[in-house]
Amino acid sequence: MTRGRLEAFSDGVIAIIITIMVLELRPPHGADWGDLGPVLPRFLYYLLSFGYLAIYWNNHHHMFHTVRRVSGGVLWANMVLLFFLSLVPFVTDWIGETHAASIPTALYGIVMLLAALAYYTLQTTIIRLDGCDSLLRDAVGGDWKGKLSPVAYLASIPLAFVSPWISIALFVAVALAWIIPDRRMESVMRERARRE
Amino acid sequence: MTRGRLEAFSDGVIAIIITIMVLELRPPHGADWGDLGPVLPRFLYYLLSFGYLAIYWNNHHHMFHTVRRVSGGVLWANMVLLFFLSLVPFVTDWIGETHAASIPTALYGIVMLLAALAYYTLQTTIIRLDGCDSLLRDAVGGDWKGKLSPVAYLASIPLAFVSPWISIALFVAVALAWIIPDRRMESVMRERARRE
Amino acid sequence: MTRGRLEAFSDGVIAIIITIMVLELRPPHGADWGDLGPVLPRFLYYLLSFGYLAIYWNNHHHMFHTVRRVSGGVLWANMVLLFFLSLVPFVTDWIGETHAASIPTALYGIVMLLAALAYYTLQTTIIRLDGCDSLLRDAVGGDWKGKLSPVAYLASIPLAFVSPWISIALFVAVALAWIIPDRRMESVMRERARRE
Amino acid sequence: MTRGRLEAFSDGVIAIIITIMVLELRPPHGADWGDLGPVLPRFLYYLLSFGYLAIYWNNHHHMFHTVRRVSGGVLWANMVLLFFLSLVPFVTDWIGETHAASIPTALYGIVMLLAALAYYTLQTTIIRLDGCDSLLRDAVGGDWKGKLSPVAYLASIPLAFVSPWISIALFVAVALAWIIPDRRMESVMRERARRE
Repeated sequence: MTRGRLEAFSDGVIAIIITIMVLELRPPHGADWGDLGPVLPRFLYYLLSFGYLAIYWNNHHHMFHTVRRVSGGVLWANMVLLFFLSLVPFVTDWIGETHAASIPTALYGIVMLLAALAYYTLQTTIIRLDGCDSLLRDAVGGDWKGKLSPVAYLASIPLAFVSPWISIALFVAVALAWIIPDRRMESVMRERARRE
Repeated sequence: MTRGRLEAFSDGVIAIIITIMVLELRPPHGADWGDLGPVLPRFLYYLLSFGYLAIYWNNHHHMFHTVRRVSGGVLWANMVLLFFLSLVPFVTDWIGETHAASIPTALYGIVMLLAALAYYTLQTTIIRLDGCDSLLRDAVGGDWKGKLSPVAYLASIPLAFVSPWISIALFVAVALAWIIPDRRMESVMRERARRE
Repeated sequence: MTRGRLEAFSDGVIAIIITIMVLELRPPHGADWGDLGPVLPRFLYYLLSFGYLAIYWNNHHHMFHTVRRVSGGVLWANMVLLFFLSLVPFVTDWIGETHAASIPTALYGIVMLLAALAYYTLQTTIIRLDGCDSLLRDAVGGDWKGKLSPVAYLASIPLAFVSPWISIALFVAVALAWIIPDRRMESVMRERARRE
Repeated sequence: MTRGRLEAFSDGVIAIIITIMVLELRPPHGADWGDLGPVLPRFLYYLLSFGYLAIYWNNHHHMFHTVRRVSGGVLWANMVLLFFLSLVPFVTDWIGETHAASIPTALYGIVMLLAALAYYTLQTTIIRLDGCDSLLRDAVGGDWKGKLSPVAYLASIPLAFVSPWISIALFVAVALAWIIPDRRMESVMRERARRE
């Protein structure tokens, strides 16, 4: 089974999720800089969620680059990931609607945690299918970002009740850690190419 | 005629249908867990419809994987399927709007039935085009799920007037039966590969 | 220059146009069959416009199937076609909003006419680029549907002021004429294959 | 790393951005030509923004056509470009909402400037990755349009406070300059092909 259609479908879904969020950025009726004030927080939450979805797309791209076979299990693990990502516009919008109240911020953390667990499950399913010479397993060996992110999301849930801004700072920190381009995969593949 | 563009267009349409449904999940104005209460049923109907569209995409993917030729008839049978699938957001929304009243639930069953018949027509069109050594015909030979699903949808229509919950239970049961990954196609292909 | 990306982009745009129209099908607040009454005309206009966009996608698919080279002129002619198609949701919605009043129906005809002219320009641009052994030129040689459709659209504009239903009958007739699968292209290609 | 998926994702995002703008073209309740009056300016801003996104897609297409390798840096530079382009529906809508007031028009110029800078960064990232025999570097050598456009966007920002129409005239002029098909890339590649 080819991986091409799975990638194309995932690209389509992520492209739509990332883009429909902008529909929530309603332009103000007034025409002053001040009228943009109430839009600004929504804009920043949009930027954060755009960043997360871009990170997921990037990692998805890297991960599937090493995939040779796709099974029914991989298809469904991928669908579960897309489902949780599809909830990002909803939680982004709720945070914006409530000016980053505790519960909406905690729910953002929950959705992020579920998406991260779905990604991890997808990764594990692919590695198990690849068998013992999995290129992906080598690549994610020392994957501290993949391991720390769910911990940060988990911590963000109770912390949102101390202050939502702590949780949001955590979300921003995790996003920035990922945006540093993921050179692991590239270096492992270069390494292999050299040895062969 | 290549099947690539037909797959790409279908991927695009299904990806958009599956994603725009989330636009109906309007975040509440309040910021309490309790405010999520009215959103919860809509969320569950979204989950159900996401599941159905994911199943259709999966089956579509498997089905076209065996296709060698595409004719005008296949293009149009595919368009009819996409048309009925495009009604899923509407009926999902109507069920949510009316708290799963009888008629909206019956209409959900009708749309599901029409989509299933369109899928069956598409499958038959492909098999007829393939001729007597159709890989797809072998694969769907003992397709009890494909045969039972329309029966369940048909039953759900009158049952919605007894209680909508019976119909919804049927929809969930059919979805769960499909989510068990479809190994038929994979096993038939493996079988063939071994014989050759 | 490869034609792949132009096809992919066109697929994406047409898939989105065809799908966002369903967002205008707002479910009624009531839960009776009667409540669907006001939605029914909008549903039928949606069906008509879905049919037209499906026809354009089908013809676009067939047309580009013969294309060997893509030039800047082809890219822009294609963009103009996509622009006019992107107005279909707007005019469909206006017809629904005004219960098929004369002017909205006439505007539907105008948009259809402009899209048909853009398609014709695109076709001519491709044929000119192909040079004298254009496969596409042979295929569209006796293209009575391609020649009659703009005439029908043109006629629908004044006729909408006699009665919008005459124009709508014309639109339905043209759509039905096209939905009969377009075997010209396939037969020309089969012919060529036999001669070689 | 293949460039295919990056192109497909960018195609998807640009296709969605270009299409969802049409959702802001709300049909009037009345059915007279006069009722279209208030929609007309929005239509013209839609046309302008459609043109800009079409230009970006065209240039993106040409640029990636020469790309051999894709790095993490290219992925992220591309994401930044897509982010700024995703703001186009918002600013288009704000201009329409405020009848082209000064500040919304200036913000349109700012978004255009940021998108142009992101495009330039992406181009530079690709050229640096290609090394000294970069096909793209040769092609953009005398790129007066790429150099003049940001200057025009920059000028449009203060000029919007003199009169928004000056800025809008500038936007239209830049768009028209680009719509003349970009033959540079094609000619450089033809040149190379001849020399080899």
